[in-house]
Amino acid sequence: MLNATICTIGDEILIGQIIDTNSSFISKELNKLGVKVDFMISVSDKESDIISNIERCLSLSDIVIVTGGLGPTKDDITKAALAKLSGCTEFRYDHDQLEIIEEICRKRGIGLSVLNRDQALVPECCTVLKNTLGTAPGMMFSISKNGGLSQSLLFSLPGVPYEMAALLPQVIKKIESLNSTEAIFHKSLSTFGIPESLLASLIEKWEDELPDVVKLAYLPNPLSGVRLRLSIYGGTEEDAEATVKPLLEDLKKILGNSLYGEDDDTLEQVISRHLRKISCTLSTAESCTGGKIASLITSLPGASDIYKGSVISYDNDVKFDLLDVDRGIIEKFGAVSSECALEMASGVRRLLKTDYAVAASGIAGPDGGTIDKPVGTLWIAVAGPDFCESRRVTFIGDRQRNIDRFSSEALNTLRLKLGIQLM
Amino acid sequence: MLNATICTIGDEILIGQIIDTNSSFISKELNKLGVKVDFMISVSDKESDIISNIERCLSLSDIVIVTGGLGPTKDDITKAALAKLSGCTEFRYDHDQLEIIEEICRKRGIGLSVLNRDQALVPECCTVLKNTLGTAPGMMFSISKNGGLSQSLLFSLPGVPYEMAALLPQVIKKIESLNSTEAIFHKSLSTFGIPESLLASLIEKWEDELPDVVKLAYLPNPLSGVRLRLSIYGGTEEDAEATVKPLLEDLKKILGNSLYGEDDDTLEQVISRHLRKISCTLSTAESCTGGKIASLITSLPGASDIYKGSVISYDNDVKFDLLDVDRGIIEKFGAVSSECALEMASGVRRLLKTDYAVAASGIAGPDGGTIDKPVGTLWIAVAGPDFCESRRVTFIGDRQRNIDRFSSEALNTLRLKLGIQLM
Repeated sequence: MLNATICTIGDEILIGQIIDTNSSFISKELNKLGVKVDFMISVSDKESDIISNIERCLSLSDIVIVTGGLGPTKDDITKAALAKLSGCTEFRYDHDQLEIIEEICRKRGIGLSVLNRDQALVPECCTVLKNTLGTAPGMMFSISKNGGLSQSLLFSLPGVPYEMAALLPQVIKKIESLNSTEAIFHKSLSTFGIPESLLASLIEKWEDELPDVVKLAYLPNPLSGVRLRLSIYGGTEEDAEATVKPLLEDLKKILGNSLYGEDDDTLEQVISRHLRKISCTLSTAESCTGGKIASLITSLPGASDIYKGSVISYDNDVKFDLLDVDRGIIEKFGAVSSECALEMASGVRRLLKTDYAVAASGIAGPDGGTIDKPVGTLWIAVAGPDFCESRRVTFIGDRQRNIDRFSSEALNTLRLKLGIQLM
Repeated sequence: MLNATICTIGDEILIGQIIDTNSSFISKELNKLGVKVDFMISVSDKESDIISNIERCLSLSDIVIVTGGLGPTKDDITKAALAKLSGCTEFRYDHDQLEIIEEICRKRGIGLSVLNRDQALVPECCTVLKNTLGTAPGMMFSISKNGGLSQSLLFSLPGVPYEMAALLPQVIKKIESLNSTEAIFHKSLSTFGIPESLLASLIEKWEDELPDVVKLAYLPNPLSGVRLRLSIYGGTEEDAEATVKPLLEDLKKILGNSLYGEDDDTLEQVISRHLRKISCTLSTAESCTGGKIASLITSLPGASDIYKGSVISYDNDVKFDLLDVDRGIIEKFGAVSSECALEMASGVRRLLKTDYAVAASGIAGPDGGTIDKPVGTLWIAVAGPDFCESRRVTFIGDRQRNIDRFSSEALNTLRLKLGIQLM
């Protein structure tokens, strides 16, 4: 099985100013291809650090993918470091990339500066991977492994995530041509509503009886619940599918409707799919979640098929004026109450003329809690053609985490009312 | 200067199922303390990988911070690996942590299982860092460096980001007691509206004249623009401040109102601060951004001071019925038009009775574009007490990136109308 290392370059990562999302993206693609990622490393913009760490990666892995440090500005030195590392001191202009750079500058209405033009300058010995979305081309180098006859492939990609993502298919194609990839099989199952440790107890017996070849992992996430991942390394995909199938059936029996999806399924995905299938529409009314629920739903392409919109009633006046929540209700019970959430849900459903509606009213913090309603309290309501129901949940977390968990809990409440589960 | 390595453990990172946000968070805190992070590494849940990589980190760094692999489930083996690595085979129950675990189970209404209780089991030789938010305690080990007399500090923290974040102050305190920390000074400046390469040309002369001790980096981000970071390693904070001050003044002259903030300032932060200062309120009307603008604004604590809410008019009927957009306008110009955006902004401003309003209507993709209005087209409108203005922008990107850039571009349009810039 081919193995790989992913190396991200940039002081901005090491000082914590940005989060590296590239490594995760790349490793997902490599896994699909049957390439195992042994480790990921982030190093600084210092030439000696770049060279020594990439050399170490090359000595350990068949494939090394480097991202970052290819910008037009002076702090970006990856290209020079890779030229040195590959022993290639001559540079040339790549004409295809130069044309793209000229086109990009034209579209943005800016002149072609020397900095931009020199983005097309690459070490003679590399193979260029054209970048149509940005100025920095990708590069591929073939480098002798530990000084021996076998070669490691070294790829250098831009650090800008969407440019990197657009270049990756070219990398995949080169790796596929190595023709020695073996399957890595992952099957993930999405659950919601059972805390990780309770889930572990529930499936303990099932877990104990897993075949040795199957590895299980628990992946909790505030937006999508706990994912269970079954992995099988090596062998054929057909064998792996056959091994996993009965395990999955048993798991469905144990977890029932807590099991809602497979692979990368999220709550918003299974809900959107279901609503599309039954030709129904959804609206939302959000207070404390401030647009997060809407944002999750509309992150999916084609959301307009099933989603009509939202009223974000951050201020109580918006609850009265738009959602027609009764003033007396808020005076008597407060905005964070079953009564208010119910009126928000039925109000937005009526106003936006949708089949279903979800509402959330709570206290995300850090301030604003009381003894009865501490920070982390949320009232959720779901309304449909023949029901309107509310429930209360309480979480412990910071503001961002509370907003995330509030949003997923609201979506999960809707999912359960719609009867969506993994069949 | 003390140096550190951050090591995250978990197959879920290496197969790309989750993104590591812990390393970034930790390294930011270490930087503040004057501890330089040399590199970050992510390794699998395999015991031999954990041990060999942490040993390498310990041989290179004064401080090693490990996160992950401390869950109650069987795939989590960090604790056992660290016990082996530290040569400490005896375990004990930590009574403080056990009490916390009991309390957590009580609150969640679940029984105290063996799995949960054993979360309080720690190697004899470690110092426990109490975790009040979760079941897994943090641990600190003192380990001889390269077999010599000097000691490296090895910390193990839970992988759940908010538990890790809550434990970090205890780590910081231990490191501070080492008493040999020297300052690392970073000054970041937020710009918006100038592409990275153009920015580089604009400040080229200024950059060439930077003192040798000052390092400059460009950090582009679709949500907050291009950040310029000036870094000075070593020396006192006062010296660094004095070095940076005149540089900053010169930069303000060159960049004018493209420069909008310092350090971690985001568009939503400077706008919220300004509105609070002038006691004004804001509302939003979103189509294609689907709640992202609202979500950015309400991610900040105390957002309710200045933000009243939003109408997400994903469906045209919501534009007509709630925002009072004229049907004729959409028939004639389409929903993605100057006219529609202007009516959305003035409509939501009137409806929610706010001083200012922002509206966005565009095509995020991947489908839905035309020749005149390709995917990536956005009309933004901003309305205030005495103006209502629109502008068009066009981006090239995938759906998520378009949504992000649409949202920040809308916020930046509002910022410029409010006259907010770095003074």
